Amino acid sequence: MFYKKQTHRSHDRSHNRQRIIKTTSHHPPTSENKLKIIALGGMEEVGRNMTIFEYGDDIVILDMGLQFPEEDMPGIDYIIPNIDYLKGKEDRIRAVIFSHAHMDHIGAAPILLERLGFPLVVGRPLTLAFLKHRQEDYKPNTVKNLKTVVIKSLQDTFKFGIFKLKFFQVEHSIMDAVGIVLETPVGNVVHLGDWTLEKNENGQATLDYSFLSRLKRPIILMSEALGVIDVRPSTNSPKMKKNLTQILEKAEGRVIIGTFASQIERIEWIIEAAEKLDKKIAVDGYSMKMNIEIAKELGYIKTHKGTLIKIDEIHNYPDKKLVILVTGAQGESNAVFSRVVTGSHRNLKIKKSDTIIFSSSIIPGNERSIQKLKDSIYRQSENVIHGEIMDIHVSGHANREDNIQVLKQIRPDYYIPVYAYHYMLVEAAKLAKSIGFSEKNILILDNGQIAEFDAHGGRATDKRIPVEYVFVDGLGIGDISHIVLRDRRVMAEDGMIVIIATINTSTGKLVGNPDIISRGFVYMKEQKELIEKTRHKVKKICEDHNKETPAFEDHLKNEIRNQIGEFLYKQTERRPMVLPVVIKV
Amino acid sequence: MFYKKQTHRSHDRSHNRQRIIKTTSHHPPTSENKLKIIALGGMEEVGRNMTIFEYGDDIVILDMGLQFPEEDMPGIDYIIPNIDYLKGKEDRIRAVIFSHAHMDHIGAAPILLERLGFPLVVGRPLTLAFLKHRQEDYKPNTVKNLKTVVIKSLQDTFKFGIFKLKFFQVEHSIMDAVGIVLETPVGNVVHLGDWTLEKNENGQATLDYSFLSRLKRPIILMSEALGVIDVRPSTNSPKMKKNLTQILEKAEGRVIIGTFASQIERIEWIIEAAEKLDKKIAVDGYSMKMNIEIAKELGYIKTHKGTLIKIDEIHNYPDKKLVILVTGAQGESNAVFSRVVTGSHRNLKIKKSDTIIFSSSIIPGNERSIQKLKDSIYRQSENVIHGEIMDIHVSGHANREDNIQVLKQIRPDYYIPVYAYHYMLVEAAKLAKSIGFSEKNILILDNGQIAEFDAHGGRATDKRIPVEYVFVDGLGIGDISHIVLRDRRVMAEDGMIVIIATINTSTGKLVGNPDIISRGFVYMKEQKELIEKTRHKVKKICEDHNKETPAFEDHLKNEIRNQIGEFLYKQTERRPMVLPVVIKV
Repeated sequence: MFYKKQTHRSHDRSHNRQRIIKTTSHHPPTSENKLKIIALGGMEEVGRNMTIFEYGDDIVILDMGLQFPEEDMPGIDYIIPNIDYLKGKEDRIRAVIFSHAHMDHIGAAPILLERLGFPLVVGRPLTLAFLKHRQEDYKPNTVKNLKTVVIKSLQDTFKFGIFKLKFFQVEHSIMDAVGIVLETPVGNVVHLGDWTLEKNENGQATLDYSFLSRLKRPIILMSEALGVIDVRPSTNSPKMKKNLTQILEKAEGRVIIGTFASQIERIEWIIEAAEKLDKKIAVDGYSMKMNIEIAKELGYIKTHKGTLIKIDEIHNYPDKKLVILVTGAQGESNAVFSRVVTGSHRNLKIKKSDTIIFSSSIIPGNERSIQKLKDSIYRQSENVIHGEIMDIHVSGHANREDNIQVLKQIRPDYYIPVYAYHYMLVEAAKLAKSIGFSEKNILILDNGQIAEFDAHGGRATDKRIPVEYVFVDGLGIGDISHIVLRDRRVMAEDGMIVIIATINTSTGKLVGNPDIISRGFVYMKEQKELIEKTRHKVKKICEDHNKETPAFEDHLKNEIRNQIGEFLYKQTERRPMVLPVVIKV
Repeated sequence: MFYKKQTHRSHDRSHNRQRIIKTTSHHPPTSENKLKIIALGGMEEVGRNMTIFEYGDDIVILDMGLQFPEEDMPGIDYIIPNIDYLKGKEDRIRAVIFSHAHMDHIGAAPILLERLGFPLVVGRPLTLAFLKHRQEDYKPNTVKNLKTVVIKSLQDTFKFGIFKLKFFQVEHSIMDAVGIVLETPVGNVVHLGDWTLEKNENGQATLDYSFLSRLKRPIILMSEALGVIDVRPSTNSPKMKKNLTQILEKAEGRVIIGTFASQIERIEWIIEAAEKLDKKIAVDGYSMKMNIEIAKELGYIKTHKGTLIKIDEIHNYPDKKLVILVTGAQGESNAVFSRVVTGSHRNLKIKKSDTIIFSSSIIPGNERSIQKLKDSIYRQSENVIHGEIMDIHVSGHANREDNIQVLKQIRPDYYIPVYAYHYMLVEAAKLAKSIGFSEKNILILDNGQIAEFDAHGGRATDKRIPVEYVFVDGLGIGDISHIVLRDRRVMAEDGMIVIIATINTSTGKLVGNPDIISRGFVYMKEQKELIEKTRHKVKKICEDHNKETPAFEDHLKNEIRNQIGEFLYKQTERRPMVLPVVIKV
């Protein structure tokens, strides 16, 4: 309730502000008549997407995304773009534009906007609504700090310092996704955000970007290239909707669908199809419920009264009348779908007669958990439908053919493939060359690498801005160092052993027996002999140790660490972290 | 050198033994006239494949594979089949048959054969040579303990107790892969091992299993179903060989190929193609060199003298004359391919002009490391070829169409899909039903579930043998418990903090300041304030603690663990393992 009011109020405020044009500058104009483009994150590790456009004293930023951690970053919640480069330039930032509301584009905003002194934020209604929700979720009562400008119509144009900004529609798996045209003195930058070419039933694209080819030249195209090596024919939404409707229609029992909370378009189809078939929809999962609520409030999802029911009401309806939508199609252990499958959900246990649908568009790193989930579902239900069995998922990313088509439509003077792994950028460049683009007009930018455009053209420079990882772990932002991560990895691998030696300061001799505690190394109760041998070895080290050694304590700790480490490796071929503690009494 | 001699000697011995028929039994015959089939491992987690056949007093085993650990098993080297069921039955084991030499079929043999008192081992020459190598690698000088019987010809038949055993050829990605026919009093079991249907240039299968349909009925077909949901058209070896040859021919510089050491057939093609083009081949990677040596010794790989060169000799040849074969196509951090790509290989650095080929048939869990590898290779070479770019890999597993074809050829009375995830087994069963098999004649067995066949037919029973994980970690086999793994996971997630309180036993009071050590939680140097607050909190807990409390020490430890855990969570939203140590002086 609180949240809604907040949204509403800040909405109102943003209306008034909508056409504010910030042109004031506190700095004398610089002599640099060039446009700098810096792409962060998306280049090396897909996710923490952020692009900086800089001309003279004016800076405009596109997106502030988060990246989910890699396998070798245990315990890390997510990673955000490094904004060291913007330190001291905060008041030059004219606007931060958000292309769409997915986490890899808005997820870092609550942290970064605050650090940058809350610059003006620009986006379509759904995007801003999600952003505000994310802000409030991150830190309650802070949404009031956001200064937002809603793009009410795609005809709206904005002026931010030297930059003129226009928007155009793109198709992605969430409503209100946009591309931008950024007019600068040295060229028009077109950025497609995340995009695909939506097809009609006959496989024809429903959007045409030819109009962008008529912009004043040079045209600099920045285009997300995540699907550039995907040669599978693209599926189309009408076909997918038909498949979904058929499944819902044929289902003898309940239909349980595990999907991404962020796939709002897909969720909307499901609700639409269920309603047509006079079925009720129960939704579970915090983010899914919230996303649907936001989309409903803005009119992007329309339902009759009574179509959406609560998850604890499902027992009031016959199975055949029920569609249940839950989060967690990727096997995330804490998501609702996993809880349903493992039988730990309060209201929902799978029955043989249930139809279970989940997407198999696997996020790298999730393969094994999805695998286990699949096995478990197959044990419980006789009607399991996933990506390998039936095409029920439309990709939100353009495939190879789409990329060719759009390059031909826009005919840019410069092509900068973005928001994808480096090797995909290289393949995108190869693709462009194969259809006639000149190599020198294709720029492949590394994470943080600066591209420059001026009256003489554009180029990738050898300058880079700082890009070191900024880890978020619990409440800590950027406080987790590589040392901490290395320790986590070592302990994960072979555990650790704490060795406590109490030493009499005056004699330098051991008092009593050394204490030994092991965690994650061996199960101590079953390894009494090994522990005793280790204790004996520690005693020996302490006895042999000369108390006159300079830095006696550190020296003794090193001896214990090295000798016990070696001893344990010989005994077990494991390398636990050895943590010597010397207590002086 | 030593190794070779060993192989040779034990070969000789096995020749003499080849037709030994073991029928002696030390047990009185049991009254059970039924065949038990128990499939281990392959059912739930693909990998530790092992199948037990039991009739009366006679036991025959097929394969003893290892499984690589899942993500939630940090530090574990591999997992082996649980053989608790066979304890006390060691002398009933008439033979252990190996279908082919891949690790998921022979990898657990050195451990299990020893534990079972070295029963007779049966396999084709390459399979046994690899098995012996694995044994010697695991524990030097133990290959002499193996009692081996070589299948010299596929016409050979064997009698092991009540069982009669025949073999037939199957196609897989390694030479000498076989299927077995096990004649029992209640039916003929056909097990295909790991298999695919090799195709000629016209896409026609080169093997036909119709002859198996003429076995005495009932025929019980056990068939690996890993590719049963794979609807992609199968590629054929002649086409792949042509692709490979063309790449090698066109390469302007060196060709560097990263592949699996176990894909011996593929390695043989590469050597053949290189030799035809008069190129030299350098091999690097222990397992690859060893596997090629074994295959050469047995005549499975033939090379002219001088074709194979040492990796440190590559600088003596022009780039165009070089093909370099290395292990590690899956981004394994310690493999040669990774070292080449990261620039840490002694003899080999990638040049722009090199052609780099690696398979992209990704093993689940390796996606991210392969991703990084790809990016890095694209930065260094302009000619990168992998699975997404060109089809250079033939799967060793039958696809959906192959499965249909073989089911129709053999027309079994019972169908038991095996060696695949549960959901694939279910899909295999659905497939069989769709082409006319009756549901009651399809058996889906869980890990360790017992199937029984007698005069009245066959069925999956509700009896199961023990299947708990047996982890191998360093020198420890089965000593890593779930507690140890849980500790490793907790420490990997948020690290740990050791709190050492020295207590005066007579007063119950703290002596000096508590010591605090953190690893993988926060970086202590940068978190002095938090550490001080924690120390203060510990002091308070110690002061408040009543020394008259029963079990004083344990109680105090619990207080520290709980209160500090809660305190740290509030401060950081992290949950490190809290390890309280109370030292009494």
